[in-house]
Amino acid sequence: MNRGKLMEIGLNKVNRNLHPINSTINIGENSIGSNNITIIAGPCSVESEEQIVNIAERVKASGATFLRGGVFKPRTSPYSFQGLGENGLELLKIAKEKTGLPIVTELMSLEYLDMFLEDVDVIQIGARNMQNYPLLKEVGKIKKPVLLKRGMSATIEEFLMAAEYIMLEGNENVILCERGIRTFERYTRNTLDLSAVPILKKLSHLPVIVDPSHGTGLWWLVEPLSKAAIAVGADGLIIEVHNDPLNARCDGEQSITTGRFQKLMESLKLIAKVENKIL
Amino acid sequence: MNRGKLMEIGLNKVNRNLHPINSTINIGENSIGSNNITIIAGPCSVESEEQIVNIAERVKASGATFLRGGVFKPRTSPYSFQGLGENGLELLKIAKEKTGLPIVTELMSLEYLDMFLEDVDVIQIGARNMQNYPLLKEVGKIKKPVLLKRGMSATIEEFLMAAEYIMLEGNENVILCERGIRTFERYTRNTLDLSAVPILKKLSHLPVIVDPSHGTGLWWLVEPLSKAAIAVGADGLIIEVHNDPLNARCDGEQSITTGRFQKLMESLKLIAKVENKIL
Amino acid sequence: MNRGKLMEIGLNKVNRNLHPINSTINIGENSIGSNNITIIAGPCSVESEEQIVNIAERVKASGATFLRGGVFKPRTSPYSFQGLGENGLELLKIAKEKTGLPIVTELMSLEYLDMFLEDVDVIQIGARNMQNYPLLKEVGKIKKPVLLKRGMSATIEEFLMAAEYIMLEGNENVILCERGIRTFERYTRNTLDLSAVPILKKLSHLPVIVDPSHGTGLWWLVEPLSKAAIAVGADGLIIEVHNDPLNARCDGEQSITTGRFQKLMESLKLIAKVENKIL
Amino acid sequence: MNRGKLMEIGLNKVNRNLHPINSTINIGENSIGSNNITIIAGPCSVESEEQIVNIAERVKASGATFLRGGVFKPRTSPYSFQGLGENGLELLKIAKEKTGLPIVTELMSLEYLDMFLEDVDVIQIGARNMQNYPLLKEVGKIKKPVLLKRGMSATIEEFLMAAEYIMLEGNENVILCERGIRTFERYTRNTLDLSAVPILKKLSHLPVIVDPSHGTGLWWLVEPLSKAAIAVGADGLIIEVHNDPLNARCDGEQSITTGRFQKLMESLKLIAKVENKIL
Repeated sequence: MNRGKLMEIGLNKVNRNLHPINSTINIGENSIGSNNITIIAGPCSVESEEQIVNIAERVKASGATFLRGGVFKPRTSPYSFQGLGENGLELLKIAKEKTGLPIVTELMSLEYLDMFLEDVDVIQIGARNMQNYPLLKEVGKIKKPVLLKRGMSATIEEFLMAAEYIMLEGNENVILCERGIRTFERYTRNTLDLSAVPILKKLSHLPVIVDPSHGTGLWWLVEPLSKAAIAVGADGLIIEVHNDPLNARCDGEQSITTGRFQKLMESLKLIAKVENKIL
Repeated sequence: MNRGKLMEIGLNKVNRNLHPINSTINIGENSIGSNNITIIAGPCSVESEEQIVNIAERVKASGATFLRGGVFKPRTSPYSFQGLGENGLELLKIAKEKTGLPIVTELMSLEYLDMFLEDVDVIQIGARNMQNYPLLKEVGKIKKPVLLKRGMSATIEEFLMAAEYIMLEGNENVILCERGIRTFERYTRNTLDLSAVPILKKLSHLPVIVDPSHGTGLWWLVEPLSKAAIAVGADGLIIEVHNDPLNARCDGEQSITTGRFQKLMESLKLIAKVENKIL
Repeated sequence: MNRGKLMEIGLNKVNRNLHPINSTINIGENSIGSNNITIIAGPCSVESEEQIVNIAERVKASGATFLRGGVFKPRTSPYSFQGLGENGLELLKIAKEKTGLPIVTELMSLEYLDMFLEDVDVIQIGARNMQNYPLLKEVGKIKKPVLLKRGMSATIEEFLMAAEYIMLEGNENVILCERGIRTFERYTRNTLDLSAVPILKKLSHLPVIVDPSHGTGLWWLVEPLSKAAIAVGADGLIIEVHNDPLNARCDGEQSITTGRFQKLMESLKLIAKVENKIL
Repeated sequence: MNRGKLMEIGLNKVNRNLHPINSTINIGENSIGSNNITIIAGPCSVESEEQIVNIAERVKASGATFLRGGVFKPRTSPYSFQGLGENGLELLKIAKEKTGLPIVTELMSLEYLDMFLEDVDVIQIGARNMQNYPLLKEVGKIKKPVLLKRGMSATIEEFLMAAEYIMLEGNENVILCERGIRTFERYTRNTLDLSAVPILKKLSHLPVIVDPSHGTGLWWLVEPLSKAAIAVGADGLIIEVHNDPLNARCDGEQSITTGRFQKLMESLKLIAKVENKIL
């Protein structure tokens, strides 16, 4: 049995044994991995200036510390909305200007790396690209923080190895994100693996956040799973929030409204306090 | 897509739509499914009088409200320890006499049903028997509470259908237990599916508890996952506690010590309070 | 890595290392596990005398050597057709009388063991009961051949351990049946794991058959997967055949017609010949 | 239930309903998807000129029609051998010159696309990149045949959607490759899903080949699963063959020797003949 053991050798840069102290990643006034809970909120896709600015203002008012919003979207079907691309990035910048919220968005192609270096605060590597090694190596050569999502069927070990790819090139600013794994269960989009949080924190020194939106695929599960994520020891959350989920261009069924987000933040504060964390 | 929908018709007795109010199950002074968090604790297997009485006294002192302990053990290998059988049941009764803790233990065969009716307070149906329909039907014909564990690869829908089998025969005292599902991940014994808790509570009116010991297979994950389970809305926990895990006859690697159990209870009280639950 | 290795000790009775020669199981003129390919065919459920006799005659004419037909049905929902029970067994006996085909049917409860001992030629233990140890032990105490189906999420190792439970009690007439495992794929009912066939034959000396009907859940996949099963080394097949699949009381979508069964047998003969097997 | 149905709309270019006739892809004298079985053989990694030329000559002598060999290797760990890169491509060209076998090798990064356009006959997109959409789109803009491997946990639908991404850009020369999916089973590296072959051939008009080496991870399973793949209707196979598997720099445990490959080809010829295919 390999339970409780990693099977391959080779964890070095991510290994807590070699770096016993928690790593923290500082972005503006925010410190990810510290006693402050990081809340990244925003829509699945940037759709218009009005939409992204409105959502950014609302989530900031409720206490979010980062703005998320997809502009290059990896979609299963080529006929689905692929995101606004560079124009979307411009809209994210407007929202950042108006609210001060740093930007988290996904990079799919090295073609846009320079643009992301300039405009984006945290570069997200999505689940589908967790083992896109050329991409990992390139974001490893910069200093910009990288939010690395666990692959849909990646083991804990493979996930840590992907982070090792980035860090081995020199970038130590890696944030791990559990976002649900693929199982036989069909009621939810994925099965959120909250046990991954304390495991990742034991094996590595990196900050670990949780995505309850993709992790469940159902908006009404976001609140209970967010609370559970904080209770299990996560350093933060990335949550899909939309001003009009029923008409969202993607992932509406897993997005919560700005009003519900505000209530969620209130209940998260209580859990955070029990965990001696600040929210 | 069927996300968020059940695929087959036929939920009736378990269906919250037809029974909007939470069911509670009263055993002695305990009310499972109420505002009181139910804590079932004890060893994987009953091994000796000294062992079970010692553990029962210790977990009671820390606030456990039920005693668990296997006497008929479903083991993957026929060469593994199969439990003490009827003698084990006698030892559980001694521990109950000394502590007042009601007994939860697993029934594998109808042969022992009468004995369980007399001596056991909650009859556990294990994961391997979740679709043992003759067994479900027979425990449906009695009034004794049944703790039904989710099968290793049972969908939410199949799990509820198994409860429906019991209730359709007349026994409405069913407690659902999420205990981890089988996935590709090898680091843990199972992947604990905490999203199942709010889903089961939305779809059914039955109490839902969580087994973080089998759900993870690793003792050091029991505390964070127990906290997460309460935060996600579970009505209780079933936890493997042993006075000497290193020498336990089964599941030692997932059992916590009585000392650690006491500390766990302290931290669970804080989470319970936030959830307006009593522990 | 444990690839290619079993993790637990304890394989003894099933172990090929200790019994290098293939076991064969003789029933009437049939020898399962020999150079003769065993073909078990018939409906999911026995529905009426006319139905079962008609199907039995047709599959016999096409070369089937055993008749299958469920009379006690393990159904996910208690509201689904549960089988004709004892009456169904009587109908199977009539079909056997008229065709000479030995009967294979599933035993779910020890209550009916004596009846099965008298009337049934091969006792099937279904996937849901693969780890129902009291049932395994009891069918281990008789000499009647047992067809043991792999559990929905049973590993190869667990499957062999279940066979070990039976054999350890004294019954050496065990036939293993690969019937598909539960995966994330939703297009098929299960994922038929044909690699299990050569693995089971390498690790054990028992006959191994394949169920392409449950293994795929779609009638049009039965022919190609049956051919593949013979090519991969299976000793036989168990196939759902119905005279009127569109109106079958269960599993119609995975049942082939008697006409198609006849054609399937023709193409299987060609593959069997290449494998130096007789069909 | 969605069994037997695709869940999302949008299959167009790959859709057999709109293109009823089998597509064939012609490379030199070879026609993939025709009555000729395509056999792609060679080592996991190109290691030296001697190694690759020796293997190429041997597999050609046994009847292989394409040479495979990794030069850019996607490895889980950054500390594992990453392939010889451009130098490896030069060695493949030498082996092609000496044997005439066209080259199949994996492209991981667009950086090398021009080089592959010139030197490679079939561009392989590996399982880890099945949803690397920028890469799919770029290989869609060329005419060079693309061998697209199914992702580790990709559904049939997602696999076909990935092919749609390529074809929508204009490249109709897509070959689908089933290479095993990730399941709970630990004895094998993956679970080879042979049901995918007839499903892919029913839903699409594209050639479908099978990789029994990655599909099982164990060299002694390659022969039975190769035979099963031909029997189930595959248009070809891609097989790892090494002159010295024990000392291979990667995947030695799943590579067969050149001698065993020769015997495999003999037995495959018999199955191919039954299927009215030429080998």
